[in-house]
Amino acid sequence: MNDQSLFAFPSLDDIETASRRISPYAHQTPIMTCGTLNRMVEAELFFKCENLQKVGAFKFRGAANAVFSLSEEQAEKGVCTHSSGNHAQALALAAALKGIKSYIIMPEVAPTVKVDGVRGYGGEVIFCKPTLEARETTLKEVQEKTGAEFIHPYDNLQVITGQATASYELVREISDLDFVMTPVGGGGLLSGTALTTHYLSPQTKVIAGEPKNADDAFRSLEEGRIIPSIDPDTIADGLLTSLGDLTFPIIQKHVSAIKTVSEENIILAMKTIWERMKIVVEPSGAVPFGTLLEHKDSFRGKRIGIIISGGNVDLARLPWQ
Amino acid sequence: MNDQSLFAFPSLDDIETASRRISPYAHQTPIMTCGTLNRMVEAELFFKCENLQKVGAFKFRGAANAVFSLSEEQAEKGVCTHSSGNHAQALALAAALKGIKSYIIMPEVAPTVKVDGVRGYGGEVIFCKPTLEARETTLKEVQEKTGAEFIHPYDNLQVITGQATASYELVREISDLDFVMTPVGGGGLLSGTALTTHYLSPQTKVIAGEPKNADDAFRSLEEGRIIPSIDPDTIADGLLTSLGDLTFPIIQKHVSAIKTVSEENIILAMKTIWERMKIVVEPSGAVPFGTLLEHKDSFRGKRIGIIISGGNVDLARLPWQ
Repeated sequence: MNDQSLFAFPSLDDIETASRRISPYAHQTPIMTCGTLNRMVEAELFFKCENLQKVGAFKFRGAANAVFSLSEEQAEKGVCTHSSGNHAQALALAAALKGIKSYIIMPEVAPTVKVDGVRGYGGEVIFCKPTLEARETTLKEVQEKTGAEFIHPYDNLQVITGQATASYELVREISDLDFVMTPVGGGGLLSGTALTTHYLSPQTKVIAGEPKNADDAFRSLEEGRIIPSIDPDTIADGLLTSLGDLTFPIIQKHVSAIKTVSEENIILAMKTIWERMKIVVEPSGAVPFGTLLEHKDSFRGKRIGIIISGGNVDLARLPWQ
Repeated sequence: MNDQSLFAFPSLDDIETASRRISPYAHQTPIMTCGTLNRMVEAELFFKCENLQKVGAFKFRGAANAVFSLSEEQAEKGVCTHSSGNHAQALALAAALKGIKSYIIMPEVAPTVKVDGVRGYGGEVIFCKPTLEARETTLKEVQEKTGAEFIHPYDNLQVITGQATASYELVREISDLDFVMTPVGGGGLLSGTALTTHYLSPQTKVIAGEPKNADDAFRSLEEGRIIPSIDPDTIADGLLTSLGDLTFPIIQKHVSAIKTVSEENIILAMKTIWERMKIVVEPSGAVPFGTLLEHKDSFRGKRIGIIISGGNVDLARLPWQ
């Protein structure tokens, strides 16, 4: 255990419980391979396709685990969160499946397609000004008015444990991996992956890919403290957030390295995955493969499991056009 | 048997042999489902994802079956075909896997990406003027010079039998289908699917979707004779060809109906599959789902297996932009 952490890391038993808890709702996503991509990086890659997960992202795992582990008293008041990304839709769907209300706080400037997505799953959208302060104030108002349980997008132990179930499926299906790799934004997926891998495949190193233009996690790990992400400018719009008080200690303890990737290589990776694997991945989901393209020498000949985080992308605004 | 057919239709034993023959080389592709698409057409759909097949299309099955059933004497002279589509790459790859030469006749105007694709798999490209006559002459020249075996893109029994292996996997995995559906161009996939389904699931009806703007197969079935496709203008560029002397009698005997679809519904189907299923399909591959969107009333409440024919598409030229 990390000396500074004042909480118990989720255990293997917690992860197994989460896996059973969400299994009636979440897909056990396929693991794909592609000879062309292997040859490009001269390594053997196993892609866990969370773009094929419900709502098109791994975020459904964490949201479902959080919602379905609430007590009945908590649940009947509903859940709330702030997110304009995949967590918003994931929480709305998880709440709908549980039959409870969800309140999603989104900035007024959120794209209509995201707002419609949340409403399509039955979530109630509450708009706020696009500032951190307005978001916090609105969240507090919603909580006071409704009593809804706040489910943070990543800094929540049930969310982290839920995200851990993706790598739980991966490392049980594919053995002898040298590395497991995820993108990193707030660190929910990365910290969950680090725990699973530590428990079930301790010889496997866990690493993350991060956009150079949003390298706060890389720098946080270097400096040993959370460096906030300030005005990041990357196409990988799922990775703009900073590490959290729960995700950082787990990452510090169990992640071997975070490596950064240029915008060019993120776009090249995304286009290559679409063209050769015939699957739709969002820029954030292409970050690990892009990172391998950029750091080929460190991974030649290795067996690498990669979690493709999501596939939600605006088809009318693709980066190669 | 159809009275007019002067050849024996491939048997179930032929299809099983083909399935075993190509299994070391071809993927057993996954079958995907999607709640949103089901709700859109109020039916239960099972998508056999041949866009995830080698070279990104079912065409690899037929090419591989044809190449790997050649005698050693035939094989050592290589294979040839005319195609600027998926069959060209499929035959080049199948030949490479067998370790023999392939000669692919392509029109001078073929897109560079298609030419590079064939060469990337080791095929030798021979250009000809973009006319039917030039194509036939060039083919004859290549055959005379090399002795290579001509593998027609669809009017070849080994090719038809190879294409039949896709539905062979589908109907064995998913039972009690009311319909199995494919797109139709030259009819290789459709005729193979009709045979498999007839043998293994005779209560299941086989139907095809065809672009309204290239409805020669629809009219051929209506009139009882092959109507050539003249200057078809559709985004579904894999479906421009006419039925053949081998595919037509099988289709006449074992296909229940061909239904047509507008360009608008092909594009809507394609975009919906990308957005909701997170897989890349080419316009031709979206034709069956587009046809269901256009003829919802005929299929409400049914269980329908759909073969997604391919996923090769120019990402820089998408129809919704």
